Amino acid sequence: MKENLTILLAPDSFKESMTAKEVCEAMERGIKKVSESIKCIHVPMADGGEGTMQSLVDATGGEVYKLKVVGPLGNEVEAEYGILGDRETGILEMASASGIHLVPLEKRNPLITTTYGTGQLIKACLDHGVKKLLIGIGGSATNDGGAGVVQALGGKLLDKDGKEIGFGGEELSKLNTIDLSGFDTRVKEVIVEVACDVNNTLCGERGASNVFGPQKGATSEMIEVLDNNLRRYAEVIKEQLCKDILEVPGSGAAGGLGAGLMAFLNGTLKKGIEMVIEYAGLEEKIKSADMVWTGEGSIDFQTQYGKTPLGVATVAKKYNKPVVAFAGRVGKDIEVLYDKGIDSVFSVINELTTLEEALEKGKQNVEKTAENIIRLINLI
Amino acid sequence: MKENLTILLAPDSFKESMTAKEVCEAMERGIKKVSESIKCIHVPMADGGEGTMQSLVDATGGEVYKLKVVGPLGNEVEAEYGILGDRETGILEMASASGIHLVPLEKRNPLITTTYGTGQLIKACLDHGVKKLLIGIGGSATNDGGAGVVQALGGKLLDKDGKEIGFGGEELSKLNTIDLSGFDTRVKEVIVEVACDVNNTLCGERGASNVFGPQKGATSEMIEVLDNNLRRYAEVIKEQLCKDILEVPGSGAAGGLGAGLMAFLNGTLKKGIEMVIEYAGLEEKIKSADMVWTGEGSIDFQTQYGKTPLGVATVAKKYNKPVVAFAGRVGKDIEVLYDKGIDSVFSVINELTTLEEALEKGKQNVEKTAENIIRLINLI
Repeated sequence: MKENLTILLAPDSFKESMTAKEVCEAMERGIKKVSESIKCIHVPMADGGEGTMQSLVDATGGEVYKLKVVGPLGNEVEAEYGILGDRETGILEMASASGIHLVPLEKRNPLITTTYGTGQLIKACLDHGVKKLLIGIGGSATNDGGAGVVQALGGKLLDKDGKEIGFGGEELSKLNTIDLSGFDTRVKEVIVEVACDVNNTLCGERGASNVFGPQKGATSEMIEVLDNNLRRYAEVIKEQLCKDILEVPGSGAAGGLGAGLMAFLNGTLKKGIEMVIEYAGLEEKIKSADMVWTGEGSIDFQTQYGKTPLGVATVAKKYNKPVVAFAGRVGKDIEVLYDKGIDSVFSVINELTTLEEALEKGKQNVEKTAENIIRLINLI
Repeated sequence: MKENLTILLAPDSFKESMTAKEVCEAMERGIKKVSESIKCIHVPMADGGEGTMQSLVDATGGEVYKLKVVGPLGNEVEAEYGILGDRETGILEMASASGIHLVPLEKRNPLITTTYGTGQLIKACLDHGVKKLLIGIGGSATNDGGAGVVQALGGKLLDKDGKEIGFGGEELSKLNTIDLSGFDTRVKEVIVEVACDVNNTLCGERGASNVFGPQKGATSEMIEVLDNNLRRYAEVIKEQLCKDILEVPGSGAAGGLGAGLMAFLNGTLKKGIEMVIEYAGLEEKIKSADMVWTGEGSIDFQTQYGKTPLGVATVAKKYNKPVVAFAGRVGKDIEVLYDKGIDSVFSVINELTTLEEALEKGKQNVEKTAENIIRLINLI
């Protein structure tokens, strides 16, 4: 083994078991058990989905804040947002305030769910004086086109009588006028980037309501209403804001929040893993490493589609660095990953056990696997 | 990676999943997927327990034979024995003819179980003209001191009226005279080695009946009878054959079969793993390898006590060869193995699944792990 080896640790979280930061720490403990001289660089990663805020905060030495906001059903929920280590970049996941996990199965109804809480998180970031805003939009409970965000930021969505409409996708049928006179002016000074891995348009067969409505509790009758209402929403936006977001790929993401962020916050959509790679400073850090370790709770052939291990491997290959991936579950057809830069994949599972115990023992299993990989490398 | 690497593959079987030979083959398939130029030497291993016959036959290019014999309960069972590649060495496991797995739970009764079938296997080996006999004695259903073996080989065990006693540990109470006039004379020309990892003496608290009787179905009343009867057996042997086996360590193995083989076949006891290492020619083969792979269904701190991976590692360390171990289950406190020559341990489990599926997918899991280890080594 090369002396003074530097290993870059860039795993995603292992869902329900460890944050990405905890995976890094477990890897390092295993490494250091074998060799104190190996240098470890921690870059906790994510792919724009759940855990992205935490990982980027951890990767940059930022801070997480908690905030009570309006949840998807209008009740109060505690949500989180982060400020990255540069103190100029705010980051939030819409699911934290407006996610489907906040709505019990029997109450799921996208006619009434709102993104208002997500707007409150954005406002909180603005209060920190950020210059950039990173927004993850997976896991939404909503189908309101981001109308709630607009309302939270002081925009008025009025019906034909000049009365403010209420929360939820159903209310958009009444939308007549958008009044942005009270809209938070700080938004104009901020660059908004949205992590989005879907190409769905706002309406139609491949639109937000049809594709994602059912998993949010929409019946076929509801879907028709929701789809019509989002179309109306886009028409009013086009007429009054001169922005045509109806057919923009990604406008249908997160129940149309994609469209809303584009129209009202001038947001640009970006692949989640690319956003994380950029803001974690992965590329620069990889240059100085001899080897790259990544990982995720589950790795299989689907890992090639925008998942963290593949994203990390793609950067590593640019600089010809060997890549080892860890996973709880190593599934089918991982051979496709070998061609795409992941050199070697190891499951951290050490014995058959319950899922509960496997999740609980995640850290010690990662540590043990890391230790044995270094012991093996040491032999060569 | 070194060019023209030679890897010695010396795993034990993975119980209920693969023979040791099949593990070797799966390892090689995984290796060859990455590099055709790596040379593999197959040495299927065992530790003297179940699978020892098959592994040594496989390691030496010998042959397995089937034979119908008298089972532990007196009924017919199909057993196996092997002739090693040298055609001069017979090998058998007592459990094949007289094992506990041949007796249903409700019929377990060491008062009546016999080693007669084991004697028939020995006879069959003698019919092949062997000069050496290797006998594995784990997993017995019997507590007859090997009396059945003596009877099968033509020895007469007589009561005070000169009548032959029957099968089982209970009958030994009647033993009065040993008549070896009809005993198979070929036994004298054959070297008998017995794989035995226990030190128990024939009788008493640490004796065969007390320690191993319960797992064979003996109640405390039966144990008293059995212990007394083995003591009588030893006394008659001492008087009439001038051999004192009562206190010899290992005489209590396999319900006293250890004692019987020492007394009647001049058998010498040997640690199982040492016997296998010798007859598999492991040491000579290890010299020509760059790296050694071993493994077993389960590896944990107990692996240090006479198990195959530790035995293989001990020889490998003599020649400073790196050792990688594979296991289905990697259990607790494996750190002790690192100090004893196993450099690195990998579980072949790739995801949480049922035991049934894990056993069924054993070969592809070993192959996948082998492939990824070579992929990793290739990077360095």
